[in-house]
Amino acid sequence: MGINYKKELESAAKSMILVHEPDTLIRMIVRTIVNKVKVRHAGILLHDKERDAYILSVSRGPTGLKIPAGFARMDADNPLIRFFKERWDKRLLHDGALVYREAKKLLRKRLEPQAKELLKKTLYQMEIFDVEVCLPTYFENELLGILLLGSKKRNACFGRDELDFFVALASDVVMAIRNAKLFKDLQAELEKERRLFIHTTIALAAAIDAKDHYTHGHTSRVTNLTLEIAKKISQKYHEYKKKFDEKFMENLHIASLLHDIGKIGISENILNKSGPLNEEEKQRMHEHPSVGALILQPIRELSESLLGVKYHHERYDGSGYPEGLKGDQIPPIALIIAVADAFDAMTTDRPYRRALSKEEAVREITKDSGKQFDPVFASVLAELYQEGKI
Amino acid sequence: MGINYKKELESAAKSMILVHEPDTLIRMIVRTIVNKVKVRHAGILLHDKERDAYILSVSRGPTGLKIPAGFARMDADNPLIRFFKERWDKRLLHDGALVYREAKKLLRKRLEPQAKELLKKTLYQMEIFDVEVCLPTYFENELLGILLLGSKKRNACFGRDELDFFVALASDVVMAIRNAKLFKDLQAELEKERRLFIHTTIALAAAIDAKDHYTHGHTSRVTNLTLEIAKKISQKYHEYKKKFDEKFMENLHIASLLHDIGKIGISENILNKSGPLNEEEKQRMHEHPSVGALILQPIRELSESLLGVKYHHERYDGSGYPEGLKGDQIPPIALIIAVADAFDAMTTDRPYRRALSKEEAVREITKDSGKQFDPVFASVLAELYQEGKI
Repeated sequence: MGINYKKELESAAKSMILVHEPDTLIRMIVRTIVNKVKVRHAGILLHDKERDAYILSVSRGPTGLKIPAGFARMDADNPLIRFFKERWDKRLLHDGALVYREAKKLLRKRLEPQAKELLKKTLYQMEIFDVEVCLPTYFENELLGILLLGSKKRNACFGRDELDFFVALASDVVMAIRNAKLFKDLQAELEKERRLFIHTTIALAAAIDAKDHYTHGHTSRVTNLTLEIAKKISQKYHEYKKKFDEKFMENLHIASLLHDIGKIGISENILNKSGPLNEEEKQRMHEHPSVGALILQPIRELSESLLGVKYHHERYDGSGYPEGLKGDQIPPIALIIAVADAFDAMTTDRPYRRALSKEEAVREITKDSGKQFDPVFASVLAELYQEGKI
Repeated sequence: MGINYKKELESAAKSMILVHEPDTLIRMIVRTIVNKVKVRHAGILLHDKERDAYILSVSRGPTGLKIPAGFARMDADNPLIRFFKERWDKRLLHDGALVYREAKKLLRKRLEPQAKELLKKTLYQMEIFDVEVCLPTYFENELLGILLLGSKKRNACFGRDELDFFVALASDVVMAIRNAKLFKDLQAELEKERRLFIHTTIALAAAIDAKDHYTHGHTSRVTNLTLEIAKKISQKYHEYKKKFDEKFMENLHIASLLHDIGKIGISENILNKSGPLNEEEKQRMHEHPSVGALILQPIRELSESLLGVKYHHERYDGSGYPEGLKGDQIPPIALIIAVADAFDAMTTDRPYRRALSKEEAVREITKDSGKQFDPVFASVLAELYQEGKI
């Protein structure tokens, strides 16, 4: 009977559900069919909603591609498509498969003229594509796609049980493909939404940066630096490897971008003042981490990032602001930003002093390790400098 | 033979792939099995990655639930789980199904002591759960879940071909469930990311609002109003129904939240000045739509929202800024914001004048319809007022 390929195809179909890359999936299926069933070629027509057409997603003969994928297209009014869309298969065929040789015989019988006309045109389409069997798949009465099989080698006939099996298989295949497409669309949407969020945050952070003439590009430099430091630490220290997971890195990224968000409310006169600040002005400046935290407070998803914003001016020895936290009390996300923030401030010109060189800045930070800065994060900054990475 | 339920179950299994609500799916499957196969009860154990345990997701007898869903749990070291995880099924059973009566006989044969011990404990677990057949499912050699069947009514035996069929079915079922779960997780992730973006945008818009003492809450009021106007228009005018689709409403939402983002760079001295602005100050103020557009420029996904930000101070008769666009040249997204923005500005106190009443503001805007404002959007504002919606 020659349907010993059934088990293999069935198990291939089974794992298809969990393959979420539509192109891979389609290619895999058609290759398996061509190899196992010994047909001259096979292809899959899939419904493309946007174009309201059926596209030949892949077509393959044993020696490779038969028709370039995405090339052949049948509009909704193509006779072959209409034949199945209008459910003539239900009226004219006793199971789901349209077999060329059987349909030819059917033409000789008495049929309503409309049916005969459409069937004739449908068979002509099958000739064009050199297709022996068409196997449609529906979901909720909508035609999702059609599996096309070429003739068998040595022109052997398809047996009845073979055809039954293919009817079931075609439906598995098309549903798996549809599933994969839905999955891919959803994933693309998610990626887009993530990009949107990060890009918007970057744009707004840059706009806040721009208020302060002296800190142009500060935010993006600090962000790059915090991520470098965190990466290095998780490579070097086993205990940080788990803590600094993907989620943490994301939070650190956002916290770094937004660390000065609280400056939104500080007047340019203070930010850009060239002389030393008076007490009142200093106090306004010192409020920016708390103001930033206040802005982010309503956003539940940013609660970890908020800690970085709120505490990035705390000092390791407890002499920082706003709360005077000490050592371990300060969240690591804030300790990292503190180091990167200080390094960038030291290495750029300020109204009241010239920039230090990178070497001088690293020396300053190393000197203040354990006082202003966390010793681990300060030492990693020095290492990054020695390696020429910053 | 009594396997006439096959077709029905097969077609149920087929459409499962496209059901992406795991709980519905599981319940549907187990109900179908119990009804068609006439077993006393059926259930599905599914692997829970986070807890590294197998949870009885649903269990159902013909009269309703047997064991509460999520109640029973088997850890990875439960004998029944170990039996399949360690692939004793491959060595001891000639197909995938573990059948209680057959396994009892197996115990009487010569087996390695380790296997005998584990099988004995496994059968004890089956007794506890009153299970007659266990059907495991693997994907890439990992145990995804086990379909559990109770004994048949009148204690009939399961036939060989029935069992073969169930082995295939169980695998379909578990894969479909896993697929649905992946789908649901992805969808939840997407929702979360969307919330994050909108909430962050709202928080930042509010922070920019706060710079201007006179416009507290302006952004959120304008946002509510633009969405009301757009909703009303798409209900009332057929030609807008298609234009103002979900995507447009999203873009309008974002544009409204960010319409004054360009004020980020304007000093508080100008924003809060109580006297009239001089020419230079006026010019700075007039730059805020272009500055806003500049900030959003790098974000491809916001190109439509950008139009709302950039052109919300254009006037219908061409006398607005920054480009002096006229009538149809002005994107609708900006025309809507213009109306809402003006209404909110008129109805709040400003440094240089007291607030108008809502009625007065609507009258002003109606008077300027066709001059400053688009006639359609202005008239809809008036209608919303008459309906007491604003």
